[in-house]
Amino acid sequence: MVRVAIITVSDTCHAEPSHDRSGPALRDLIASKQSDWTFLAGDIVPDDADIIRRAVVRLCDEEKVDLAISKVLEKEAPGLVVAMITESLKVTPLASLSRPVAGVRGSTVIVTLPGSPKGAKENLTAILPALPHAMQLARGESSRQLHTSPMNPVNVAPISSTTSHDYSHNHSHDHSLSHSHDHSHSSSSGGHRALARPLDTPVAFRARTSPYPMISIADAHRTIEQYSTALDAVELPVNPSLVGHVLAEDVFSVEDVPAYRASIVDGYAVIASDGAGEFQVSRPVTAEKDVQVPRITPGQIARVASGAAVPEGADAVVMVEYTEVVRASQDGSLEEVVRVAGASRSGDNIREVGSDMAKGTPVLPKGTLITNIGGELGSLAASGRSKVLVHRKPRVGVLSTGNEVVEIGETLGFGAVRDSNRPTLIAAVRGAGFEVVDLGIAKDEPNHLATTLRSALGVDSSPHEVDVLLTTGGVSMGDLDLLKPVLEQRCGVEILFGRVDVKPGKPLTVGVLGKDEPKGRKLVFALPGNPVSAIVTFHLFGLPALRRLAAHPSPHLPTVPARLLHSVPTDSRPEYMRARLRMIRSPATGLATVEWIAEITGMQRSSRVASLAGANALVRVSPRKEREVEGKEVGRVGEGEVVEAVVLDTEGW
Amino acid sequence: MVRVAIITVSDTCHAEPSHDRSGPALRDLIASKQSDWTFLAGDIVPDDADIIRRAVVRLCDEEKVDLAISKVLEKEAPGLVVAMITESLKVTPLASLSRPVAGVRGSTVIVTLPGSPKGAKENLTAILPALPHAMQLARGESSRQLHTSPMNPVNVAPISSTTSHDYSHNHSHDHSLSHSHDHSHSSSSGGHRALARPLDTPVAFRARTSPYPMISIADAHRTIEQYSTALDAVELPVNPSLVGHVLAEDVFSVEDVPAYRASIVDGYAVIASDGAGEFQVSRPVTAEKDVQVPRITPGQIARVASGAAVPEGADAVVMVEYTEVVRASQDGSLEEVVRVAGASRSGDNIREVGSDMAKGTPVLPKGTLITNIGGELGSLAASGRSKVLVHRKPRVGVLSTGNEVVEIGETLGFGAVRDSNRPTLIAAVRGAGFEVVDLGIAKDEPNHLATTLRSALGVDSSPHEVDVLLTTGGVSMGDLDLLKPVLEQRCGVEILFGRVDVKPGKPLTVGVLGKDEPKGRKLVFALPGNPVSAIVTFHLFGLPALRRLAAHPSPHLPTVPARLLHSVPTDSRPEYMRARLRMIRSPATGLATVEWIAEITGMQRSSRVASLAGANALVRVSPRKEREVEGKEVGRVGEGEVVEAVVLDTEGW
Repeated sequence: MVRVAIITVSDTCHAEPSHDRSGPALRDLIASKQSDWTFLAGDIVPDDADIIRRAVVRLCDEEKVDLAISKVLEKEAPGLVVAMITESLKVTPLASLSRPVAGVRGSTVIVTLPGSPKGAKENLTAILPALPHAMQLARGESSRQLHTSPMNPVNVAPISSTTSHDYSHNHSHDHSLSHSHDHSHSSSSGGHRALARPLDTPVAFRARTSPYPMISIADAHRTIEQYSTALDAVELPVNPSLVGHVLAEDVFSVEDVPAYRASIVDGYAVIASDGAGEFQVSRPVTAEKDVQVPRITPGQIARVASGAAVPEGADAVVMVEYTEVVRASQDGSLEEVVRVAGASRSGDNIREVGSDMAKGTPVLPKGTLITNIGGELGSLAASGRSKVLVHRKPRVGVLSTGNEVVEIGETLGFGAVRDSNRPTLIAAVRGAGFEVVDLGIAKDEPNHLATTLRSALGVDSSPHEVDVLLTTGGVSMGDLDLLKPVLEQRCGVEILFGRVDVKPGKPLTVGVLGKDEPKGRKLVFALPGNPVSAIVTFHLFGLPALRRLAAHPSPHLPTVPARLLHSVPTDSRPEYMRARLRMIRSPATGLATVEWIAEITGMQRSSRVASLAGANALVRVSPRKEREVEGKEVGRVGEGEVVEAVVLDTEGW
Repeated sequence: MVRVAIITVSDTCHAEPSHDRSGPALRDLIASKQSDWTFLAGDIVPDDADIIRRAVVRLCDEEKVDLAISKVLEKEAPGLVVAMITESLKVTPLASLSRPVAGVRGSTVIVTLPGSPKGAKENLTAILPALPHAMQLARGESSRQLHTSPMNPVNVAPISSTTSHDYSHNHSHDHSLSHSHDHSHSSSSGGHRALARPLDTPVAFRARTSPYPMISIADAHRTIEQYSTALDAVELPVNPSLVGHVLAEDVFSVEDVPAYRASIVDGYAVIASDGAGEFQVSRPVTAEKDVQVPRITPGQIARVASGAAVPEGADAVVMVEYTEVVRASQDGSLEEVVRVAGASRSGDNIREVGSDMAKGTPVLPKGTLITNIGGELGSLAASGRSKVLVHRKPRVGVLSTGNEVVEIGETLGFGAVRDSNRPTLIAAVRGAGFEVVDLGIAKDEPNHLATTLRSALGVDSSPHEVDVLLTTGGVSMGDLDLLKPVLEQRCGVEILFGRVDVKPGKPLTVGVLGKDEPKGRKLVFALPGNPVSAIVTFHLFGLPALRRLAAHPSPHLPTVPARLLHSVPTDSRPEYMRARLRMIRSPATGLATVEWIAEITGMQRSSRVASLAGANALVRVSPRKEREVEGKEVGRVGEGEVVEAVVLDTEGW
């Protein structure tokens, strides 16, 4: 027996597992061509040396394999990028539109600088002190040296207090032209500088563009993944509350199932070698515990119920349908002689001790998800274990923010908006099997917000209330968009990224508290305030993180290819449109293929929550640039084109 | 715009929606050929005139259409069948193997009788008194006349108390040869006779074969469907607990969304006709309720946050990124003059009042399932409704029965079995979104069992505790298989069927209390005691009933065609094997097709709950007879053959 595992290494496929055509094709090939090969496991990992190494070691058994592949790939050095952008922001807020690249290949440090001599010099000056560290990084040494505590944020307010300063014309920074490569703001291999404005920055001095680099969906996934490692293991009782937990131990049976020789049918325990004929009936045996069963001797049979213990001496059971009463007591309460119609073979209709599950044998391996289908829970219950070691599931806090937000049922004053985000997210988190702490609505006031966030995250006093915090609102460029600065400056949360190249969801902000404590970390997802953006980014980014924290074997939602029912316009960002997915069977018989059809659910504006009603999928519409590269019509995706659909629900198939 | 609905009429497809190839093919054709046609809805109904009529009327709008198609199809008369079998059982228990057919076509009553003159005469005699009623039925009149109250069960114990009676040789009944048509035990159109033995029947006088006819899966589905109509509507608050409920009213918005002209971006409200240039800055506008916004006049602009109200006078918003501060107060707290880089068009970046959802317009139609994806709940929250009318969800009691059954954690004595069924079913019911009442383990003792069941069903005192009762164990042919007689004789429950031609799950028993009170009915699913049989029959038969009671729009689990990874043996019954389903993408690009592969999860014995661990589907293996008719290999389904798979979970795709 050959056991096969397949690891697909690809950023694209990691972010969108459905892009992986090679993995499934290989599985298929194995399944169809190699009957003695068994497909053991599959994984899609991003193009990241550490993650690849971990995946390989995990699959090959940590004790036995030590592959040295850490230098296969480049590392990025986002710390250098942040340093350069910070320096440029002192001169012009437009620097935030630049996309410098810095990183290492082998032991070489590579940095792109602006095209203008002045800008180039300024940028190089900014990073010179850090370059020795960067080269240490390139040689694989610790990144600690570059780390700046998020509790001491650097003031990056870019405008000096001289209001007449004409900042936009004297400096010719053209980062946006000269840096044409993608830049990944991965926090793994570089220092961190807080980018949020100090909370007391006066309005006229604030940045007019987001200081946060716009990162790709793949980078966002990669960054989140890095900080959503499985929570600690706890011992929990075997009962229905185990559903959604993942085993943190290999479970072996502590009992034989069945624990005694059990009859499979209602009938008569017989001695097979006695054959057919008429027999004396011994005492009847019902399924009952702690009742010893009398032995039968040749010429005797005993009535035995389905599931009951087969008496010693007997080696087969004949179904009652194949017997008839020949003589009974006058009142019918005792059968005396019964005729057995045919002969049995030894073993017929008997489940031997341990034949369903033998004591000491594996029941479920570490890493098994306990589903609500029932098989895993039933197996654990049958095995005799009353407690098992499972990974803790994250406890999730849900908070709405905004002075304009009012509860359902409250009067809607002028300028007010109903809080649809919080009930919706609570439902989604609970529906995914996680416990929710409802944190209510917070006002846009720094002290109030800070108190709420610190309390939920347990900043002041352990134990913390939640492992993951979901907030909505307060993350765009408005005066009261306080989430980033309050998280950084008042809660000690490090912002991992503050903008993502996705529609809806551009302002998605993710932060981490206790970055270097894998077991004590808390993640913060500051979701956009628009209802659709909040729900879509939760399903795309938040839910996989929750599932990873719970050690879920397949954290991402499944995706399928789907044919679009109608033409839709494209955007400069990759767009996730809400859709109704249906499955169409092939009209030919004998085929196991189906075709997926996706129908977009009306106007897709991110404030229009109705676009999510009835949606069971999110369809990815590729951005204009990607379509241009692929030689497709740039402005629209045509009717009948095939897109990727993230499956939210099987409802409606 | 043409709106198209498709109703597939087929018993087979109704029981196994995936068998329907015509419906999907038609949908596909419509989607691909008729761009101005919209697929509105699809339905698969059994070959039953009333159901067809209901489906048609529902789709065409009840007020406008009255189609007379009630006489297109035959009706069955199971009451006559029961009467004949009951008569024959007085002579031989083998009569339970016969399959007489009785029914009506037009106004003709059709009855098949045994081949032997004696049997034929006995049978005709038995039904003669009922034939006038049968003809009334044939003319569409009420079936009340034939109804026998389940509280007064008829004793049908087939064996006389003369123990020397040689019952198996003198009568030549060959029902099983002469009745070759399928027999449907539908309770809709005939009388009912209780078939369970009286509880005090001595062992030697009990039937040695089940008196319950073995009915087909399709008939079981049809019977269950008949008694699982939507529960009453209740008004519930709009909050996350609504998930899983189905709307019982058309919901219209009571508010405009947005309720005011809202800015889509952070920026400056402008008068579009003012064009680009430098402007005086008015008071800033944040998103805040109950704050009136000052009007701006030509030459002025006002800072406005994303989501905030656009001041009167303004007709566009310019993003902050396209502006710069020209002059500010010395401390930076007030912007005085701001330069706007480019001209706007009227309406830019403004969401008009009601543009996401207009007051008085439809939000969600009656019949909408509120999912945990969030769109429906979010839409209701946004609409301003604080309560909505939804169908009640059934409350489900779960009870294990058996003297041998012990709790997890208890000592396992000789002959004892761990209760894996109850935790598993509780998890499955909860996972499907329904409330569970844990009724514990009942002993095999009639009084104890009756008390437990009567209390749960509210027989003695309203309000009842549960709407649906799931029990496991006590339904096969053993001495202590008390469920059927206790339900019938002590609880007033009418047994609708007591055996189904399915593997696992043959002893599946379904009963109804309050048959003629659509709103007060309680359903009892007496599931087999073997763990796998219990879980499989719950998913196949119980879950769709729970979903129907909740008015769920698609009560059955979805099915897909799947290619079997290995050859498996066939049985005389249709068999549902536990399997791991995976999706394989087509290697060709631009296709929206996937292929499904099903891997059977090891030994399929119905006591081996481990066969369900890791299973995400149930694969239907057709019975030998069906394969023979189809000209396929009878004894096995070959590797690579295509089977139907019921999807339990998307985990593992």
